[in-house]
Amino acid sequence: MKKLLAAILGSTGMIGQHFVQHLQDHPWIKIERVAASERSVGMRYRHAMRTVHIKHVSNEIAELEVCPITPKAVGDVDVVFSALPAEVATNIEEDFAEAGMIVISTARSHRMDPDVPILIPEINAEHVGLIEEQRRRRGWDGAIITEGNCTTITIVMPLKPIYDDYGIESVVLSSMQAVSGAGYPGVESLDIIDNVIPFIENEEEKVQVETLKILGTPKEPAQFKVSASCHRVPVIDGHTEAVFVGTKKKAEPDEVVKCMRNFRGEPQRLKLPSAPKHPIIVRDEEYRPQPRLDRMTEKGMAIVVGRVRSDPVLDGVKFVVVGHNTIRGGAGNSVLTAELLKAKGII
Amino acid sequence: MKKLLAAILGSTGMIGQHFVQHLQDHPWIKIERVAASERSVGMRYRHAMRTVHIKHVSNEIAELEVCPITPKAVGDVDVVFSALPAEVATNIEEDFAEAGMIVISTARSHRMDPDVPILIPEINAEHVGLIEEQRRRRGWDGAIITEGNCTTITIVMPLKPIYDDYGIESVVLSSMQAVSGAGYPGVESLDIIDNVIPFIENEEEKVQVETLKILGTPKEPAQFKVSASCHRVPVIDGHTEAVFVGTKKKAEPDEVVKCMRNFRGEPQRLKLPSAPKHPIIVRDEEYRPQPRLDRMTEKGMAIVVGRVRSDPVLDGVKFVVVGHNTIRGGAGNSVLTAELLKAKGII
Amino acid sequence: MKKLLAAILGSTGMIGQHFVQHLQDHPWIKIERVAASERSVGMRYRHAMRTVHIKHVSNEIAELEVCPITPKAVGDVDVVFSALPAEVATNIEEDFAEAGMIVISTARSHRMDPDVPILIPEINAEHVGLIEEQRRRRGWDGAIITEGNCTTITIVMPLKPIYDDYGIESVVLSSMQAVSGAGYPGVESLDIIDNVIPFIENEEEKVQVETLKILGTPKEPAQFKVSASCHRVPVIDGHTEAVFVGTKKKAEPDEVVKCMRNFRGEPQRLKLPSAPKHPIIVRDEEYRPQPRLDRMTEKGMAIVVGRVRSDPVLDGVKFVVVGHNTIRGGAGNSVLTAELLKAKGII
Amino acid sequence: MKKLLAAILGSTGMIGQHFVQHLQDHPWIKIERVAASERSVGMRYRHAMRTVHIKHVSNEIAELEVCPITPKAVGDVDVVFSALPAEVATNIEEDFAEAGMIVISTARSHRMDPDVPILIPEINAEHVGLIEEQRRRRGWDGAIITEGNCTTITIVMPLKPIYDDYGIESVVLSSMQAVSGAGYPGVESLDIIDNVIPFIENEEEKVQVETLKILGTPKEPAQFKVSASCHRVPVIDGHTEAVFVGTKKKAEPDEVVKCMRNFRGEPQRLKLPSAPKHPIIVRDEEYRPQPRLDRMTEKGMAIVVGRVRSDPVLDGVKFVVVGHNTIRGGAGNSVLTAELLKAKGII
Repeated sequence: MKKLLAAILGSTGMIGQHFVQHLQDHPWIKIERVAASERSVGMRYRHAMRTVHIKHVSNEIAELEVCPITPKAVGDVDVVFSALPAEVATNIEEDFAEAGMIVISTARSHRMDPDVPILIPEINAEHVGLIEEQRRRRGWDGAIITEGNCTTITIVMPLKPIYDDYGIESVVLSSMQAVSGAGYPGVESLDIIDNVIPFIENEEEKVQVETLKILGTPKEPAQFKVSASCHRVPVIDGHTEAVFVGTKKKAEPDEVVKCMRNFRGEPQRLKLPSAPKHPIIVRDEEYRPQPRLDRMTEKGMAIVVGRVRSDPVLDGVKFVVVGHNTIRGGAGNSVLTAELLKAKGII
Repeated sequence: MKKLLAAILGSTGMIGQHFVQHLQDHPWIKIERVAASERSVGMRYRHAMRTVHIKHVSNEIAELEVCPITPKAVGDVDVVFSALPAEVATNIEEDFAEAGMIVISTARSHRMDPDVPILIPEINAEHVGLIEEQRRRRGWDGAIITEGNCTTITIVMPLKPIYDDYGIESVVLSSMQAVSGAGYPGVESLDIIDNVIPFIENEEEKVQVETLKILGTPKEPAQFKVSASCHRVPVIDGHTEAVFVGTKKKAEPDEVVKCMRNFRGEPQRLKLPSAPKHPIIVRDEEYRPQPRLDRMTEKGMAIVVGRVRSDPVLDGVKFVVVGHNTIRGGAGNSVLTAELLKAKGII
Repeated sequence: MKKLLAAILGSTGMIGQHFVQHLQDHPWIKIERVAASERSVGMRYRHAMRTVHIKHVSNEIAELEVCPITPKAVGDVDVVFSALPAEVATNIEEDFAEAGMIVISTARSHRMDPDVPILIPEINAEHVGLIEEQRRRRGWDGAIITEGNCTTITIVMPLKPIYDDYGIESVVLSSMQAVSGAGYPGVESLDIIDNVIPFIENEEEKVQVETLKILGTPKEPAQFKVSASCHRVPVIDGHTEAVFVGTKKKAEPDEVVKCMRNFRGEPQRLKLPSAPKHPIIVRDEEYRPQPRLDRMTEKGMAIVVGRVRSDPVLDGVKFVVVGHNTIRGGAGNSVLTAELLKAKGII
Repeated sequence: MKKLLAAILGSTGMIGQHFVQHLQDHPWIKIERVAASERSVGMRYRHAMRTVHIKHVSNEIAELEVCPITPKAVGDVDVVFSALPAEVATNIEEDFAEAGMIVISTARSHRMDPDVPILIPEINAEHVGLIEEQRRRRGWDGAIITEGNCTTITIVMPLKPIYDDYGIESVVLSSMQAVSGAGYPGVESLDIIDNVIPFIENEEEKVQVETLKILGTPKEPAQFKVSASCHRVPVIDGHTEAVFVGTKKKAEPDEVVKCMRNFRGEPQRLKLPSAPKHPIIVRDEEYRPQPRLDRMTEKGMAIVVGRVRSDPVLDGVKFVVVGHNTIRGGAGNSVLTAELLKAKGII
């Protein structure tokens, strides 16, 4: 199989480097271009990374010359991964889509556009259908596809089988988020050691609307209420969330555990290279999941659930969930999305 | 004023030492006896502490001889503070009450006895009335008074003004608890660094029932539903809790903030020595409360609230609260209770 | 007594705020001017602090208008505290000295100028004599006085009595430094949680030369060799240092402990308001000193030593020392220096 | 090749589990017996572990029945790995050696016996020769072989090429040790969060004598002086040590780096399965080595060095080193030793 050629926009930052990590030995995809802001243009990738966040950069990638973030400079590639900050992503991603390219973005800029999917391949693979409408409306040949923010991705995975089998009336969630979620530079050590920070800008709003969009149909968001309280804790990687779910049909914890364990999505059916064998792992031990012990389950692509029990207030179940915020909740999910598009013949 | 004479049961452990810290310079109370288990009996208090948890022990206390934990050995004191572990507290505390002494306990053993108050002086000072029934029922001259567990104390303080002014339909809470709450030895560093532990034995059950008993009348618990999810985070002192409250009457966040700020209880009216001037402090900054910055507010006796906002799911308000688990949620609250009993002429 | 009028340069940053904390209730000194960079000029001090690092700012200070960092704008004050970053401190501090003002600086810019003292009042009060030479050489009426960096201040205190009583041949030290030493923004949490960073820029060089200048005469640095290895650890405040000292005369650990405990300096003799009663506290317990338990000893102005034992390699003693890097190693030492100058009639 | 049959003594504790992790998929060795104290005897291994410290236990091992720690119960195996606590290891290990078995131990009990080697296969493979003397002296067919404590193993690796090429006059070292080094239960989180503990019982003495024994000949320890100061820091795994070395011949840092990089030992020449390709990795970046980033280098079997620079006090070099305390400094080193003995025909 000829490998897909990929470009990474914002390739020298933390998320950009995570894309390099996921793609440099990928069986289907080859990094062809690394694009970054002016400061880095013309440098070897090796020298353009100001802080190194990944364990290993292959020699081939290290020697690539960083190019500007324009469709012209990037040239002829099959897929573009955008790790751009939201402030600049809006326009640049549109430029690439207009130039005919498929852009898969971790930025929040276009997530809430009605014709742009927020894709979690296990959950709403059918939302790729929105691309057609997007192209029609905007008159371009390319497309923009986003993924949810890391806190949302972690929670929607276990919500999906509940939504399908029991229906959801309401969700309350309280997050304990890792510092890597804030990027780099992000959280000051002087602020977080021996501490909890009870606020993450825009996070609660994002979780509340993205969850509904992802679990809905391509045309219409799901119809239930979500209330989030988001907090930062002194953990390197892995978001932990306490989730309380009101269900439409009575949900026994044992049954919910079974339906989570049985849950499979398109990536599992299609045996995509980055797909975890089980997208949701449910642990029986009372003391799990824990971010340090569980974040790397199935190479960081599985979501780990535990302590599924009845919830007396919302009349449903409550549980604790851990997801790796920069893998499943970041570059890993975008790579899985590219694999899905390839398998479906869209790329 | 002649000082009250006090004994501390379990005086050499972590909580016992906290009692020493709160009482050694107390204007109304004098430590007369330090009692501990056999291992320590006969030793100077100075030498009986295996690990020292407080900054300073006055010379006078340091030289006290540790006596056995029996009414006879403790002899004639006005009030007994019990820092005993629950496993042994049940019977020993009864022995002291039977011997005519007032026992104020941090142990959970008697909390749910219907004739034993869980006293948070600002909230349910009128529950001291239960003592009479306790004496009648049990035929003793002494009394047992308990305090809630640290997670409960932190949450009931801000719930009280809401309960009084708006009525409460339901409460969902997710805690991020400090390691000092587990005692000593307690949480292994190998378990908690770079981690969250999503389970604290019996904690959720305790929060759920104690909250209702404290906010109810002496005869009857409050009638609403509580659902808790309790977690341990790498913080030394100070429990942080995300609280979601469904109210009976519509509650505007601004109004709720006002009623929290205006809240005063018996300790404030009576100007008790350990009473914080404001039992509830509400911070306006989005990034507060934080345990490291806020736990020592008003010497650790105030509860600090922030981020009061509407809750769309429970139809009420949500907020974040920080309380010092070993001061307001521990020895400090018990000392305040002793002051209340003194001011009311019960001791 | 009429209070000295003080200005703080760089008043809105972390170190500037520490000066506010130390001076706002000071018995001898009154903050008259708060100066900061252009961005803040004209704002109330209350609004000019971007991140608040101290617990309390008095209303009086909070309402001060921030003025530019020029002698003209600052006007007529008795002493100027400089919390400027080294990059800009060099020229600005000279401008103030030229305009006739006494500048006490935490910046490193002028520390190694031969006519500028690095003053630790307990250790080298006589170095104030350098001011005269400084004035003569530079033809100004003001003066610049610096303090050592935080790692140096922590180590020279216990070295001083050894130097006086035994003579020093050589010093090896390995530091475990708190994150607050890097300022704000400083150390990324993503870099330091569950980690040690084995490098702090220029720190080893500074420790090596400043130690000799401080322990020397005003004319000549001390003559021994110092070798430092500096590391950052996940601690909020308080530098811990393992120190190995080769002595000229044979030094028994017991005797060294005694001479440290007996050590007093000018600030103790003059009973200066910020002087700790004992500048060096030696703990007997093997498990001390620890930064979290010992950093606030004597309000953070004492240096705490422990584990004094023989050193077989350097033929002398080795010990562990903890000092509060932003109090004794920062604003606190500069305020003590101002008090010394006042007591000696120089201000 | 027929696999060697192995038994693990103390198999259910933390170090015992690490042995399981290293051996369960080993190409040359098969776990045949898991022995533990009475409490566990007769249970399946799966149920005998009270706290699980490793990610995966193969089904085959999980189903093994735990046997008593006696030669009779363990029966006919080729090699015995002892993870016993020192208090009980002394006699039990002798019983096994007397019964004719080769015991490789992580306990300190027999390390300083003159006829027992402390084996770091890269460094002193020739010390296996001591086994003959041990057998002669003690009249047994088995043997006891130990490994150094984790702090020693980390330091001797980079000292070895210096010792060989330059000679060593003296060593000063200051350690920043991970909490996993204290076992489980070990370090209280209440003691170590936001803190440094400046004392580890017996550790400095062990480092000082073991280093000399390992670097010496089988008959005689090396002849130089070592002075250690050992400290615990809030790091999960990986000991960091600042090392200062006085050399006999003048040592240029560049040359020392080269000789460390070129260093190979018997395990590399014999291509043993657990041998790292490079036993010493030297990093060029000033900010390395760091325990979180470098501890798993070559699966935790390599020692990572950085910041090699001249030392003015001891007249030699100083550097920082990181080693994984439970892999290279624990079970991994013992397994490598077993491989060496097998390759040399001793097992």
